[in-house]
Amino acid sequence: MMEQCAIGIDLGGTNIKGIVMDRSGRTRHSSSIHSEAKKGADKVLKNILRLIEMLLQKEGDAGHVTGIGIGTPGFVGADGTVVGGAANLPGWKGTNLYCPILEKFGLRTTATNDVTVAALSEARFGAGRGIDNMVCMFLGTGLGGGLVLNGKVYKGKWGMAGELGHIVVQTDGLQCNCGLKGCVEQYASATGIVRNAKIICEGIPKDVLTPFAKLVQENPDTINSKIVYEYVAQQDPFALKVNDHVCDMLARAIGAILNTLSPDRIILGGGVMNAGQVIVDTVNRYAPNYCWREIWDKTEIVIAELGGNAGAMGAAELVFEEIAG
Amino acid sequence: MMEQCAIGIDLGGTNIKGIVMDRSGRTRHSSSIHSEAKKGADKVLKNILRLIEMLLQKEGDAGHVTGIGIGTPGFVGADGTVVGGAANLPGWKGTNLYCPILEKFGLRTTATNDVTVAALSEARFGAGRGIDNMVCMFLGTGLGGGLVLNGKVYKGKWGMAGELGHIVVQTDGLQCNCGLKGCVEQYASATGIVRNAKIICEGIPKDVLTPFAKLVQENPDTINSKIVYEYVAQQDPFALKVNDHVCDMLARAIGAILNTLSPDRIILGGGVMNAGQVIVDTVNRYAPNYCWREIWDKTEIVIAELGGNAGAMGAAELVFEEIAG
Repeated sequence: MMEQCAIGIDLGGTNIKGIVMDRSGRTRHSSSIHSEAKKGADKVLKNILRLIEMLLQKEGDAGHVTGIGIGTPGFVGADGTVVGGAANLPGWKGTNLYCPILEKFGLRTTATNDVTVAALSEARFGAGRGIDNMVCMFLGTGLGGGLVLNGKVYKGKWGMAGELGHIVVQTDGLQCNCGLKGCVEQYASATGIVRNAKIICEGIPKDVLTPFAKLVQENPDTINSKIVYEYVAQQDPFALKVNDHVCDMLARAIGAILNTLSPDRIILGGGVMNAGQVIVDTVNRYAPNYCWREIWDKTEIVIAELGGNAGAMGAAELVFEEIAG
Repeated sequence: MMEQCAIGIDLGGTNIKGIVMDRSGRTRHSSSIHSEAKKGADKVLKNILRLIEMLLQKEGDAGHVTGIGIGTPGFVGADGTVVGGAANLPGWKGTNLYCPILEKFGLRTTATNDVTVAALSEARFGAGRGIDNMVCMFLGTGLGGGLVLNGKVYKGKWGMAGELGHIVVQTDGLQCNCGLKGCVEQYASATGIVRNAKIICEGIPKDVLTPFAKLVQENPDTINSKIVYEYVAQQDPFALKVNDHVCDMLARAIGAILNTLSPDRIILGGGVMNAGQVIVDTVNRYAPNYCWREIWDKTEIVIAELGGNAGAMGAAELVFEEIAG
C-alpha cells in the first residue's frame, strides 16, 4: 500500500505554491501557478483547483491523498470561509475554500492563515522541532505571527490568533495602515525599518553624516531593510541606531508575548532575518526590560530555518494533524 | 460503585482551603486550615497533608478519589517541584509537592499556579462555560492571569504562562516590585489603583478639589480601590480620571493579549472587580486603540462569576483533566 500523503497549498498575492508531501515531511512533487489576484476571487479559486489537479496528476493516484491543506492570507472560519483580513486579494473575503475542492476532487480540505501554517512548518521541520510551545514572528513586508501551543497549532476560534504585528508598542506611535498607532509592524517589518531609518536620519546635520545617513538623506527611495543591515554590519553609527530602535520595539512585543505564553522559543523569520544574529542579539539586550525575569530565563530567541517552501509544507502538515488519515 | 471525586487544595499565604469535588463540579466536603507560612515550607507542607487527611476522613473512603490537585502561589515544574515566584511563602521554592502526598496517601497529585487553577474553574463552572479559548485576569493586591486554550488549561512548560500583570504598558512607567517599569500591575491592581489615585490627586490646587481628591490628599493612607470606585459611582471627576487612566493601561495589556491569542472571552476577576461593569465599560472604550479591529469584534470582556472557592474547585478539576480516572 502506498504511504499516505497530503497536498499543501501556499496562496500568495503573486504565486500559488503547491506540494505533495508524505508524513515524514518529504516533498514528493511540487508545482506553482500565478495567483492572478487582480482578476478576482473566482479566478484565484480556479487557479487553486488547477494547481491541485496538476499535483494529483503528478501523484498519479488520489487514493492515498489524505486531504488538502491551504495557507491563505487572511482568516478562515471553521466552515472554510475566508472571514477577513486578506488585503492583497480583492474579493477573497467571503470565499468558501472547502466546498469547491470537495465537489471537484472528493477530498477534504483544511485551511488557515498563511503565517500560521508557516509557523507549524517551523514547529515540525524547522527551528521548533521537539518544542511544545513556540511563537513565530515573520518579519517581511508586514509582520505576521503564528503559534504552536501544547504541541498543536493554535488558531483561535476564528483563525485570527497571532496578529502579532499589531501589538501596540509605543503610545501615540507611528500611524499603522490598520488604523492603530504604534503597532510593532511599523518598526520591525521591512517597511517599518526603512520608515524608521528615514525618521532617524532626517534631522542629522551635514557635518556629522555617516555614509548610511548620507545615503538615506540623498536617495531615500533606494533604501530597503537589506541595505540598512549592510550598514549595521559595517557598524555605521546611525544604522546601529536604527537597529537599536527597531529591536527595542520588537522586544516590547516579544516581552508581552512571553509574559502571556512563556513559550520555550520565539522563532524569528521572514526576509528581514537574512540580517541574521545581529537582530537576535539586539532583541536579547532589550527584551529583559519588558519580560518577567524567570520567564525570560527559560526561553530563547532563534532564527527560522525553513525557506520558501515552509508555507506549503505547513499546509500539508495541517492535513495530517487536522484531518483523520 | 461510588462516583469518582477529586480533592482540590488552594494554598494561600494565610489559609489553605480544601474541597472534595465530584466530576460535575459539586462540592461534597470542604475544610480549611491556617497556612502558617512564617514557620517555613516544611510546616506549610505538613498543613497541606493534614488538610488532605481531614478531607479523606470526611469522604470516608479514599478508593474513589482520583487524585489531588493543588493551586499554589508561584510556578510548578513538571515533576511537582516549586520552581519559583512564591514571594509570600518563604522557602517554598524547591519544595516537591507530589512525593510526600504519594508516599503518605498513595494518591497522585497535579499542581500548578493558583491563578491558573482559578482560571480553569471559571472556564468550567463560571464565566467561561462552553468557551474554548479564554484569558482570565485577576485584579487583586497584584494582577495575575490564567489561560485556557483549545479547551485545556495552558501552563507553559514551566508553569509560568499568564504572568499578565507584568506586561509592560508604559515605557519608563511606574517602577514595579519585579524590577521592570510600567507593568500593568502598577496601574490596574488594587495597589496600583491607589498608587495612581495618589499621583493624580497630588498636584490638584485646593480651589478645585473634589470630595474624592480632598480625601486622597488629606487621608492618603485610608484609600483603597473600593473607596476609589465608590467615588467613581458618584461621578467624582478626579475618581473618573483615575478610572480612565487605570482602564486605559489595562486595555493596553488586553490589546496585546487579544492580538496574540484572539480568545473568545477575557474574564476579569479579583477584588477590584467588585466595582463591576464600570471597569468593563471603560476598558471597552480604550481597548480598540490597542487591538486589531476584527479580533476585537469577535471577543468580549466579562466579569468572573465564581467567588472564594474558585481556586479549590479549579484544583480539583485539574485532577480530572490531567490524571486519568
